[in-house]
Amino acid sequence: MDIKEMLNLVKSGEMGVDEAQKILKDLPYEDLGYAKLDHHRALRSGFGETVFCQGKPDEYLVEIYRKFFERDGEVFGTRAVKEQFELVKAAVPEVTYDPISRILKVERKNKERTGCIAVCTGGTADIPVAEEAAQTAEYFGSCVDRIYDVGVAGIHRLLSNRERIGRASCIVAVAGMEGALGTVIAGMADCPVIAVPTSVGYGASFHGLSALLTMLNSCANGISVVNIDNGYGAGYIATQINRLAVR
Amino acid sequence: MDIKEMLNLVKSGEMGVDEAQKILKDLPYEDLGYAKLDHHRALRSGFGETVFCQGKPDEYLVEIYRKFFERDGEVFGTRAVKEQFELVKAAVPEVTYDPISRILKVERKNKERTGCIAVCTGGTADIPVAEEAAQTAEYFGSCVDRIYDVGVAGIHRLLSNRERIGRASCIVAVAGMEGALGTVIAGMADCPVIAVPTSVGYGASFHGLSALLTMLNSCANGISVVNIDNGYGAGYIATQINRLAVR
Amino acid sequence: MDIKEMLNLVKSGEMGVDEAQKILKDLPYEDLGYAKLDHHRALRSGFGETVFCQGKPDEYLVEIYRKFFERDGEVFGTRAVKEQFELVKAAVPEVTYDPISRILKVERKNKERTGCIAVCTGGTADIPVAEEAAQTAEYFGSCVDRIYDVGVAGIHRLLSNRERIGRASCIVAVAGMEGALGTVIAGMADCPVIAVPTSVGYGASFHGLSALLTMLNSCANGISVVNIDNGYGAGYIATQINRLAVR
Amino acid sequence: MDIKEMLNLVKSGEMGVDEAQKILKDLPYEDLGYAKLDHHRALRSGFGETVFCQGKPDEYLVEIYRKFFERDGEVFGTRAVKEQFELVKAAVPEVTYDPISRILKVERKNKERTGCIAVCTGGTADIPVAEEAAQTAEYFGSCVDRIYDVGVAGIHRLLSNRERIGRASCIVAVAGMEGALGTVIAGMADCPVIAVPTSVGYGASFHGLSALLTMLNSCANGISVVNIDNGYGAGYIATQINRLAVR
Amino acid sequence: MDIKEMLNLVKSGEMGVDEAQKILKDLPYEDLGYAKLDHHRALRSGFGETVFCQGKPDEYLVEIYRKFFERDGEVFGTRAVKEQFELVKAAVPEVTYDPISRILKVERKNKERTGCIAVCTGGTADIPVAEEAAQTAEYFGSCVDRIYDVGVAGIHRLLSNRERIGRASCIVAVAGMEGALGTVIAGMADCPVIAVPTSVGYGASFHGLSALLTMLNSCANGISVVNIDNGYGAGYIATQINRLAVR
Amino acid sequence: MDIKEMLNLVKSGEMGVDEAQKILKDLPYEDLGYAKLDHHRALRSGFGETVFCQGKPDEYLVEIYRKFFERDGEVFGTRAVKEQFELVKAAVPEVTYDPISRILKVERKNKERTGCIAVCTGGTADIPVAEEAAQTAEYFGSCVDRIYDVGVAGIHRLLSNRERIGRASCIVAVAGMEGALGTVIAGMADCPVIAVPTSVGYGASFHGLSALLTMLNSCANGISVVNIDNGYGAGYIATQINRLAVR
Amino acid sequence: MDIKEMLNLVKSGEMGVDEAQKILKDLPYEDLGYAKLDHHRALRSGFGETVFCQGKPDEYLVEIYRKFFERDGEVFGTRAVKEQFELVKAAVPEVTYDPISRILKVERKNKERTGCIAVCTGGTADIPVAEEAAQTAEYFGSCVDRIYDVGVAGIHRLLSNRERIGRASCIVAVAGMEGALGTVIAGMADCPVIAVPTSVGYGASFHGLSALLTMLNSCANGISVVNIDNGYGAGYIATQINRLAVR
Amino acid sequence: MDIKEMLNLVKSGEMGVDEAQKILKDLPYEDLGYAKLDHHRALRSGFGETVFCQGKPDEYLVEIYRKFFERDGEVFGTRAVKEQFELVKAAVPEVTYDPISRILKVERKNKERTGCIAVCTGGTADIPVAEEAAQTAEYFGSCVDRIYDVGVAGIHRLLSNRERIGRASCIVAVAGMEGALGTVIAGMADCPVIAVPTSVGYGASFHGLSALLTMLNSCANGISVVNIDNGYGAGYIATQINRLAVR
Repeated sequence: MDIKEMLNLVKSGEMGVDEAQKILKDLPYEDLGYAKLDHHRALRSGFGETVFCQGKPDEYLVEIYRKFFERDGEVFGTRAVKEQFELVKAAVPEVTYDPISRILKVERKNKERTGCIAVCTGGTADIPVAEEAAQTAEYFGSCVDRIYDVGVAGIHRLLSNRERIGRASCIVAVAGMEGALGTVIAGMADCPVIAVPTSVGYGASFHGLSALLTMLNSCANGISVVNIDNGYGAGYIATQINRLAVR
Repeated sequence: MDIKEMLNLVKSGEMGVDEAQKILKDLPYEDLGYAKLDHHRALRSGFGETVFCQGKPDEYLVEIYRKFFERDGEVFGTRAVKEQFELVKAAVPEVTYDPISRILKVERKNKERTGCIAVCTGGTADIPVAEEAAQTAEYFGSCVDRIYDVGVAGIHRLLSNRERIGRASCIVAVAGMEGALGTVIAGMADCPVIAVPTSVGYGASFHGLSALLTMLNSCANGISVVNIDNGYGAGYIATQINRLAVR
Repeated sequence: MDIKEMLNLVKSGEMGVDEAQKILKDLPYEDLGYAKLDHHRALRSGFGETVFCQGKPDEYLVEIYRKFFERDGEVFGTRAVKEQFELVKAAVPEVTYDPISRILKVERKNKERTGCIAVCTGGTADIPVAEEAAQTAEYFGSCVDRIYDVGVAGIHRLLSNRERIGRASCIVAVAGMEGALGTVIAGMADCPVIAVPTSVGYGASFHGLSALLTMLNSCANGISVVNIDNGYGAGYIATQINRLAVR
Repeated sequence: MDIKEMLNLVKSGEMGVDEAQKILKDLPYEDLGYAKLDHHRALRSGFGETVFCQGKPDEYLVEIYRKFFERDGEVFGTRAVKEQFELVKAAVPEVTYDPISRILKVERKNKERTGCIAVCTGGTADIPVAEEAAQTAEYFGSCVDRIYDVGVAGIHRLLSNRERIGRASCIVAVAGMEGALGTVIAGMADCPVIAVPTSVGYGASFHGLSALLTMLNSCANGISVVNIDNGYGAGYIATQINRLAVR
Repeated sequence: MDIKEMLNLVKSGEMGVDEAQKILKDLPYEDLGYAKLDHHRALRSGFGETVFCQGKPDEYLVEIYRKFFERDGEVFGTRAVKEQFELVKAAVPEVTYDPISRILKVERKNKERTGCIAVCTGGTADIPVAEEAAQTAEYFGSCVDRIYDVGVAGIHRLLSNRERIGRASCIVAVAGMEGALGTVIAGMADCPVIAVPTSVGYGASFHGLSALLTMLNSCANGISVVNIDNGYGAGYIATQINRLAVR
Repeated sequence: MDIKEMLNLVKSGEMGVDEAQKILKDLPYEDLGYAKLDHHRALRSGFGETVFCQGKPDEYLVEIYRKFFERDGEVFGTRAVKEQFELVKAAVPEVTYDPISRILKVERKNKERTGCIAVCTGGTADIPVAEEAAQTAEYFGSCVDRIYDVGVAGIHRLLSNRERIGRASCIVAVAGMEGALGTVIAGMADCPVIAVPTSVGYGASFHGLSALLTMLNSCANGISVVNIDNGYGAGYIATQINRLAVR
Repeated sequence: MDIKEMLNLVKSGEMGVDEAQKILKDLPYEDLGYAKLDHHRALRSGFGETVFCQGKPDEYLVEIYRKFFERDGEVFGTRAVKEQFELVKAAVPEVTYDPISRILKVERKNKERTGCIAVCTGGTADIPVAEEAAQTAEYFGSCVDRIYDVGVAGIHRLLSNRERIGRASCIVAVAGMEGALGTVIAGMADCPVIAVPTSVGYGASFHGLSALLTMLNSCANGISVVNIDNGYGAGYIATQINRLAVR
Repeated sequence: MDIKEMLNLVKSGEMGVDEAQKILKDLPYEDLGYAKLDHHRALRSGFGETVFCQGKPDEYLVEIYRKFFERDGEVFGTRAVKEQFELVKAAVPEVTYDPISRILKVERKNKERTGCIAVCTGGTADIPVAEEAAQTAEYFGSCVDRIYDVGVAGIHRLLSNRERIGRASCIVAVAGMEGALGTVIAGMADCPVIAVPTSVGYGASFHGLSALLTMLNSCANGISVVNIDNGYGAGYIATQINRLAVR
């Protein structure tokens, strides 16, 4: 119901002034006191709200999973640890946990997936972040093609996957250390590249700062960047783009 | 001509081994010695190569503009200063210069534009970067809606433009200082937001670092980031996304 | 007793020169050798001295709590861990501990509270810092209105609390990640906003640096900043301001 | 007119639905295209909007000054350079410029000033920032007591001004280099201290970073911080606090 | 087989087009799905591929060691922990582990070593990184002369080793804290110096950043730098240079 | 007059209470309004107050030089530019200026100098900072031995000056780029070394940060550090130490 | 024996050429292979070599303690942990350990102490670093006056210790957080101040960086700085200065 | 003359003790007072001393060029500006200046060049640094192959130069912005790669820091790094390696 509709109802007397005032103020979130769950989100953006598990107090976490599952029949959270999995499982037995991506979720069966997102990594150590991206994209309905361990230090590994890269409507490039993967891929592809720096490395990698700066300063066109280790964010944006492409 | 085709020609004797070898090695760029112009790029990616004018030696710059203009009938460069405009104009009289965006270009007439990209700024000082983004997007064929001076310190200015924001297939959010514009827009929209931190500010803004970090750490979904003041990059990606949306 | 009074006593012979000299040198703190307790502080500033528990050697901590409690009947400390609670409890059984805010205190009964301080957070993970601020303000006699999980990525959550924000004489805005909460609140309110960056986040949040820079570079008026995670400092200043407002 | 009032008018037919819808959407700012002037601000917050002159394109700046002056009879801008003064003066001859504080303004005659804000500096080089703070506070109606060159390296200079410091309802402490002024003042006073780091210094002062960190890490209570060289922000907040104190 | 050879085979019909196409695409790495082992590397560069053990998931690590050992009869990995040693040992009993250098390897017997690389350290705490360099160089066939604990604070220790330094064809200088060792050695020697900053130190050493900057800013000629604690990289380059020298 | 004396006068009636109160408050500095000149300083510390010229407004600078010169017959300022020299000269014709050290001073004739301070530099570009240190030390009465261009990249240059270094009671080590000079000197000498990092260098020297970190992390004993380019500070401390040594 | 003496012996035939050559090369350190013990140091500088225990491999540590104790009858090490104490005690039963300063030593009885070094701290948390400084100074023969918990936020605590500060020939100022202690002390004293930043603090203290920058940028004269938490270095330099003063 | 020889002369009485003592102390540099010219360097290292012109005072610079030219018949300096060229030319008319590389030199005719160093750049803006490297290498006797504008964003440009890269005995990889060139080249080549980050870029390139970190964190083997823009250093090391290869 939009404002105009409502105002017509007020005018016609079908809706009281107080009621209208309340609606204008009251937005469709559920207030748990410590948290405000945004059930309206799926309507607004086409994506349900998700849970960032890291550092959530136990009682809050369990309650939030239960609330979401009750209302939506599914729930998706990132950066969970095994202890959180066990806690939530006690309340929501349907929940599953992937220790690589650290995703804790209940997913409805038989969801359809469309389009094509390529998720690439520089090395094997970048796979956990890549899986967070890939599984996020899949949860929100995208097909994902995983192309792992194709870092630029052995350029032939990347070149031999040229065709698969060419098929994607959006590419997620996950790399730590010197983080040059995104640039080379963006030079080969003509679709948007979402670059994810990872904290993989040591010394002057400064926990991902080096890869982050590399990606921001890319001399290639068509590359934008998300926070260090933010696989979720990359998977989300890639899905937004993928949806536009398959519309 | 793809590899298979060529190999068939070799087999049939229609193409000599030496010629095939040369083609396999020779990629379609023009070598000026100091620079390698990538004329093939428009074919490959749908975007012609562009010129980053800043710091280019004068003779190189003029030569590059002439070469591109000769072959393509148009040419697009960023970060030009007035002196460069005058130099290039002597060789390529068709060239025009916009002192706000610092874009130096020849653009073919009657190019069609499609889709909708919203370009928003936090303040008036962010307009030069926003114009670089907007005019880049327009050059590559996108329609652009400019929504300027809608920073989050006066949230009503942004809220009253909700509808225009809702119409875009991609939003470019340009902001310096604390750089929170992208987050609030991403919370309102359901399409991808490309955030561009600007070097506008003083003191602890550290020439755009503050806005950059804000945007990378956004708690909103659907936001990715380009380099500080990189309006061109944002306009390019926004066009890639816009093309996917209007396909 | 002020200097003039004392000098008059010296003149009249009611006070000896040596005694006056001693008073002029001797300031009203209690010297434990390793620490100098400032019992005069409450007189001087209207705030009793408090204890920063983090890293205090055990024997010092217990002694300091006992001394303060003996003299003042109450004592307030921040950043305590559970082990410290148990140690102090053995010496001062009246002490209580809140694991969320990590405040360890004895508070006199029936203290009156006045005015209104709003304490807001961007997310649920910011609540521990917010509680440190809120409980500090309450200990020093302020009424507190808690408005949690109203981050700017879902601006409607904040807008629907506009009225409560409008009632405060000072607002404490607690946020990590991109830390834009303070700016939006300062744009809505007309009282001072004390912004507290938190170390909540990951990657390029650099343990709160991102939120700190955001807040320092706020394009809104009426916002000042304290150290990362410094809920205590914010609660203290908010109380100073609140007292001025209710005087 | 608040929402309820308006809805009652709609109900009674005194206001049309379209008109109400427009009002709900339309916020009271004036749209110059490139800038949105917030005339409503004075009503909302008790402070008129001000102009950050640095980097504003000339034509915009002149237009903004004229618009404000026309409507409000006064206008206040910071960080102006002499060239801007001359440009604006041609359009608004009443404008005056102070080269120390770099404030460019027209101020109505006979404005009343109340309360007391002390503005202190560590050295003489901090005076420009201090004057920006002091004149901002005076413009918005506060009395200001200037206590300059009282840095902590000669603590007697500060101690001998103890009484004046004690009279203020808010203190602005402006210091560069090691920036310890705020801490010592906050230890002496019982009112809020707004600390302003300045970019005065060289070498490892890193353009004010050193003073900024010092102030954020102050071991004194009652001190909050604004951006490097942000005299305006400090004068604004000090006025907010001063108004609460004299209410 | 190079391209020309193959094309001649295609021409002559000895090789089918499809087969040639496959070879042109197919590069000689083995794809384990999560990792792409580069067996061709030894041919290409004269160095077999090595394993960076840190953070490798257990199952991947064991598999990779087995694969390499099967094919090459030896395998070399760095940054292994004791637990990884035990895991790999179960699958590859020939493997040995050095807790100082943290190298986990199987090395073929009776490999010949040539030339001379000097590996120097500033202090005893730098020895683990130095050993990683030294054992890497030895594994790849270089003779190594270890000159440890010759930091510049006691310059006589270094000067008395002048002759040994003079004999090397390449010097690896390993130092933490202020990291000046490389400069002094480069001033004494006429062969290339590879400087390795270490994370040894505390406080403002910032985990090796101080030593890294020192080495990058060396006022001596003939010094280049690798990442903090990157003994492996230094040993590798030193071997490349040593091979050139003994050719 | 000390406190006891004064109190005895009060007791005996020779001094009035108000007068005593005033003296207790009034400290011996001269208040120019914008600056507080500390004439008492020479008595207190044995060093007259000096002037940091950089950024001082012209009228203040001239006034301060005249005041100091009038009272003390000499005056010493650092970081002056040639324009300041000319301005001050008009008011104080006795003033002299050294463009290398940028010192602007009037010095009394025939001052005696004692002891020995060695001032060393790594390169010729460090000489301006070294001269600021040397001339400061000389102004305050120290003999100075200049040992320039003895950087550690050619260690023999330093070693051949061993004897001169051994004669000093304090050594000032001035170096930019990698800044290792202080460490090697401290390893050779048994007196305190004051290290001065300079902003000489480029790239990763980050305007002196590299040299600063090197010096702070020195593995030698007996070395302390002052701010980047702070020759004055080093000359001052060296004089304090030299005075203790010759007492 | 100096060079001239030796050359005379060679001339007279009392010393053979080979022997002289060997002496000229052979410097008086003992080579343990992994470490080079500098027994000559006490002769050269008046300070015996000391042991930095942190991170030393166990076998090395025990061996080094035994060697030093055997030769010198005493030995002094810093940054030891309790486990190291127990290991060393098994080999050198005379060794004692102080868990506050973490000093592990055997000290000869009845050493004389002279002069006066004041060691001051801002808070109680700075005491471990201060004790490292104080006990180092005492080990090398200085009298130490400890003045703890006199931070500048309560300036009266420092002012009431003015007289003790005035008696020292050198002052060590130990402070974390905002680190302003050194400046205020240097303003009160006329002897050199060695400032030691500590890693005490949180948030924007960045592990001591804030205090370090404060101290480097001090606007007071006569203050130099050592590395974060480097109590040993400060105690060493203070002793060098103290010795010069009592000579 | 080595030590033994000299000692034999002393023994035989052919050389006096004082003379021998003097020789032992006196090293073969020429002392200009402000600078110590190291004429012995060419003997020791095979490279003559060079001049870093940036920031050298004019009189020093001219004198140094004359001295070197007189003795050696050639002289080589870097980072000269045009004004310096003119100054030096007045004294040494043979001098030539290249405005691209900013090299100011006199070079002897008919010098022979050997071996092969490849100097590659990512873009055209990196050419000045590359030329500094190339001309340094040529001055010291190396053949140089220039491969410019082959950045990784268009990987085909690099791949088509594979053969030339394969011929070099050392490769210098010069790149700014994201700086990934070195990694890709090192993955293709089997000789050492010297990576030179340049300050080319803007925003988050932080004047070359981004490229520097990329290169330090390279996941390729065989790559070491010099300071930002340090073409000279790279050319020097490359020559050292090239000489070893052609020996």
